[in-house]
Amino acid sequence: MNEGGASALPSATERGSYAIWTHDILRYGDTDRQGHVNNAVFATFCESGRVLFLFDEKLSLAGPNDNFAVVRLEIDFRAELFYPGRIDIGTRVLGIGRTSFRLGQGIFNGDTCAATSESVLVLMDETTRKAKPLAPQLRAWLEERLAR
Amino acid sequence: MNEGGASALPSATERGSYAIWTHDILRYGDTDRQGHVNNAVFATFCESGRVLFLFDEKLSLAGPNDNFAVVRLEIDFRAELFYPGRIDIGTRVLGIGRTSFRLGQGIFNGDTCAATSESVLVLMDETTRKAKPLAPQLRAWLEERLAR
Amino acid sequence: MNEGGASALPSATERGSYAIWTHDILRYGDTDRQGHVNNAVFATFCESGRVLFLFDEKLSLAGPNDNFAVVRLEIDFRAELFYPGRIDIGTRVLGIGRTSFRLGQGIFNGDTCAATSESVLVLMDETTRKAKPLAPQLRAWLEERLAR
Amino acid sequence: MNEGGASALPSATERGSYAIWTHDILRYGDTDRQGHVNNAVFATFCESGRVLFLFDEKLSLAGPNDNFAVVRLEIDFRAELFYPGRIDIGTRVLGIGRTSFRLGQGIFNGDTCAATSESVLVLMDETTRKAKPLAPQLRAWLEERLAR
Repeated sequence: MNEGGASALPSATERGSYAIWTHDILRYGDTDRQGHVNNAVFATFCESGRVLFLFDEKLSLAGPNDNFAVVRLEIDFRAELFYPGRIDIGTRVLGIGRTSFRLGQGIFNGDTCAATSESVLVLMDETTRKAKPLAPQLRAWLEERLAR
Repeated sequence: MNEGGASALPSATERGSYAIWTHDILRYGDTDRQGHVNNAVFATFCESGRVLFLFDEKLSLAGPNDNFAVVRLEIDFRAELFYPGRIDIGTRVLGIGRTSFRLGQGIFNGDTCAATSESVLVLMDETTRKAKPLAPQLRAWLEERLAR
Repeated sequence: MNEGGASALPSATERGSYAIWTHDILRYGDTDRQGHVNNAVFATFCESGRVLFLFDEKLSLAGPNDNFAVVRLEIDFRAELFYPGRIDIGTRVLGIGRTSFRLGQGIFNGDTCAATSESVLVLMDETTRKAKPLAPQLRAWLEERLAR
Repeated sequence: MNEGGASALPSATERGSYAIWTHDILRYGDTDRQGHVNNAVFATFCESGRVLFLFDEKLSLAGPNDNFAVVRLEIDFRAELFYPGRIDIGTRVLGIGRTSFRLGQGIFNGDTCAATSESVLVLMDETTRKAKPLAPQLRAWLEERLAR
């Protein structure tokens, strides 16, 4: 996967680096006995940011027999989150391959970056359960949002 | 617990019956393999509606050594919820006892009532782990919001 | 729904009252900032106990086009649960109607009853989305397990 | 952090590579609308494997005023998980630094490796909220379990 000089990209911890935004509301049940939002819930926030456009019916980035599979998820925890509150999830495209692409995400509480994340998604054929090349429409959508 | 003629109350399935409102955002992880939002997540929505005022630091309805314990929760499931979406949670006071009170809640997706819920909460002394009488400030707050 | 004299049933808080058993393992993420297992997770435990037989492929209690919908869930919280630990979930049938049935459940940590629950399930036709009469096989299975 | 030649380590996808084991039971609520266990739940499984020894009261790896903070989590998703079932979580130590250490984990469904994970944990002083050097007892415990 060609990620085109990641070192020169705008910082993952800055809100200004992201073009696609969703938000989520912290729940009491997100906390754990340490008093803060449980670490594993951050994976849920990353998913919220991802899924909203991947499975958007109007965008229809996946074909009728396709699905997106997350094959790798990396999260760097940078600040604790406390209930109650709201978080903003920024997403950008970091790289585009033949059958996969890499997303970068930032989870923000106001201007505080609580976590950054990178994930690799593969386009799957639901019948064969194998990776398939990114369709032109999806590729074009990703390229428009490629971080530079 | 005197619940004061529940039959005459405004309907639990009408938005207009509730005075206290919070909202929550559905998450992809809230769904289950039946395709809809998992039933158990409704208990989390009820909690979100409850906790926001019970543990509000400015309201400080609980004294420094007090806690609220849910001793009973009832949920009537009325409509399925589907991701993505947002829900509104209305809360009202249905009854006030010596050491406990009863809340009524409605979970709404637009004007559709997805569920109604009743719960009984007891004021607990954190040291003795026993129920204690509702403090005057808490009782007054509840009485102002008592459904009529 | 004829529930046949619930007052004479063996106590819901006694392990000996239940014939169907499953167990679950507490997770760190089940805790909340109060330090104990979050109340809403109890609804998940009830579900675990229910689903294991309702959707058992060998039992096949539901026909190919049927589904079970929970229409009401009641939980009485009796003791806190703390991580780590394991819980046992006992289930019994409390009543059988034409299109629905009522289950009783107990959540146990050793001999301590942490919660009891009652739920009403309706057999749904997936196509019409309406309730349908319990099939003879399902009815027989329920009657064998009816609490007496 | 000196991770001592990771390439020569036993494979992360083999059960035999792990010395510390815990297990967890899949829950119906772990599934999502794709029908499989939700990706974010894998982060919960990793946590289950980690926390059981980190916060074991008898082991007392953390001092009375210490805490472990996860600063990085990586998960490689290798196979889907389906309800119902049980998973085994193997954990090993991959590297030991001055104030932090790196764990490797494998999530197994029978002999199938559903995911592998690496995480970096930092020993935190609860008062200063800063990293502190690993105590000799903790360091010795980690070194005994260092993957070779």
